[in-house]
Amino acid sequence: MHSIKEYQEAFTEYMSMKVKTREPRNLYEPVSYILQLGGKRLRPVLTLMSAEIFGADFRKALDAALAVEVFHNFSLVHDDIMDDAPLRRGKETVHEKWDINTGILSGDVMLIIAYRFFEGYEPETFRELAKLFSKTAIEVCEGQQYDVDFETRDDVTIKEYLKMIEYKTAVLVGAAMKMGALVADAETNDAQAIYDFGLNLGLAFQLQDDYLDAFGDPKTFGKQVGGDIIENKKTFLYLKALEKADREEAEQLKHLFSIQPKEPADKIETAKQIFESSGAAALTRQEIQHYTEKAFGVLENMCVSEDKKQMLMEFGKKLMNRSV
Amino acid sequence: MHSIKEYQEAFTEYMSMKVKTREPRNLYEPVSYILQLGGKRLRPVLTLMSAEIFGADFRKALDAALAVEVFHNFSLVHDDIMDDAPLRRGKETVHEKWDINTGILSGDVMLIIAYRFFEGYEPETFRELAKLFSKTAIEVCEGQQYDVDFETRDDVTIKEYLKMIEYKTAVLVGAAMKMGALVADAETNDAQAIYDFGLNLGLAFQLQDDYLDAFGDPKTFGKQVGGDIIENKKTFLYLKALEKADREEAEQLKHLFSIQPKEPADKIETAKQIFESSGAAALTRQEIQHYTEKAFGVLENMCVSEDKKQMLMEFGKKLMNRSV
Repeated sequence: MHSIKEYQEAFTEYMSMKVKTREPRNLYEPVSYILQLGGKRLRPVLTLMSAEIFGADFRKALDAALAVEVFHNFSLVHDDIMDDAPLRRGKETVHEKWDINTGILSGDVMLIIAYRFFEGYEPETFRELAKLFSKTAIEVCEGQQYDVDFETRDDVTIKEYLKMIEYKTAVLVGAAMKMGALVADAETNDAQAIYDFGLNLGLAFQLQDDYLDAFGDPKTFGKQVGGDIIENKKTFLYLKALEKADREEAEQLKHLFSIQPKEPADKIETAKQIFESSGAAALTRQEIQHYTEKAFGVLENMCVSEDKKQMLMEFGKKLMNRSV
Repeated sequence: MHSIKEYQEAFTEYMSMKVKTREPRNLYEPVSYILQLGGKRLRPVLTLMSAEIFGADFRKALDAALAVEVFHNFSLVHDDIMDDAPLRRGKETVHEKWDINTGILSGDVMLIIAYRFFEGYEPETFRELAKLFSKTAIEVCEGQQYDVDFETRDDVTIKEYLKMIEYKTAVLVGAAMKMGALVADAETNDAQAIYDFGLNLGLAFQLQDDYLDAFGDPKTFGKQVGGDIIENKKTFLYLKALEKADREEAEQLKHLFSIQPKEPADKIETAKQIFESSGAAALTRQEIQHYTEKAFGVLENMCVSEDKKQMLMEFGKKLMNRSV
């Protein structure tokens, strides 16, 4: 097996070879731009790792990995327009650097380009990959729509929230891993198991992201701590706190999440106190643990050697320690 | 063989069965809305007709036809945002009725849904269809980008213009017909021939659209006559007139296409006079004739019976007489 660093390097090298700016430049320059902004390339790395775990040369999965990464970046470009986000990985977003129309059309072409990266596979594999890809892509769109809908609703349930983050984030992690399995011609059960591993790990990761947004270390979290609180985002922490807090605290929290003070420090502090006192913080940690363990539990029934399972678990632990 | 009306009816019935609004409603309602706005369904009809011409039951091509129609409507939704168009087929555009974000996301999901309609075909056919679809979809995006780029350029050549309308409009007509051939397992040569037939007919149709925008009968053209002149659109007529007019007329035309008078009647009249006097109007009619004949010429080498060729020619003639 190769290391994560080796996968990352092989992937970025392959991507820079395969993704070239061509005519019309105004369409393809934003594509190169967003793909070169970097990031950890976790999804494509998972595709490569999964292919190797199921016995294939990881290079065989490079095209599928590229499809995943290009799709992920398509969704970032369109989501950033919808969220009116000025920055992505510390650089201007596509619609800021160019304009909204460029963001729409360059995003569209990325979605199509992603499908094209499957074309080198055999017909049967091609169909499996494209079907999984389409199903996942539709779920990601649905997740984004739920996220948008939740902004203006005040009756979002925990169950609905979990479905939203599953669709918006976790299914693509599961699909990235399953694609590696499909390329390696893994057994159906194993392909499903690695999907479930990725899905649950993706859920754990996203819930942890919610948690760290409030309780993370500003030095290492990477994003602004308290950002979700400032933006009145209904995260797992918030919804759980509303469920568990007494009436007075719940009202206070609702009020806090209806205002946008210029100096947010007090608001953040009070919200965090309620997250703690209501028990929501502890319950969120439990939920993160629950999905992490669920991911690891799936591995038990997978037909691969123990050292490979160990490798997947180590990757999962690293991911949850944010040390990948 | 069935009639165009029969194809249209079978198609719309199938579409209303297959496209249902589901959750999240804010994502799928705009999809149902735009697909129910109507239109002549020419592209899917061509897919069905082509499948039957190559010996298949046209019903076998209904899913491919649906993919073509859903893709076409995806491109309308996103183009209408980019063009800031308030109306489509006399009704509010999606981003007007909802908002831009809804237009973006519902458009995205339509592009993915289009791919899914191929999933019922055998692996080999599925791959052929999806490959042709992706290639075509990328060209449509490139055509749209060229169209956008041309707005701010004053050195667009006739050759570039023809490539733009080929990509933006004609390739999808060719692809719609080739998909019917692929579903019917036609010979490669025949599939290519029907693609070329559709492509050239699409070019002729689009050039005629440019022509009728200036010289069409307001009672039958369907759009506002003179609309391209009002909007200073660099159509084939305009570019040809600039090429052929004497210097004085060319300068006058350039000036006319730099202003936006509140009462455009005089501007339209003068532009049309220059289109005529420069010879551009006649040359445009010639060019339309050229591509129509090119389309019909392709049929000669196609391995189908004479009555089927006759049917395709009659369809082409009806289309060019705008009586479909």
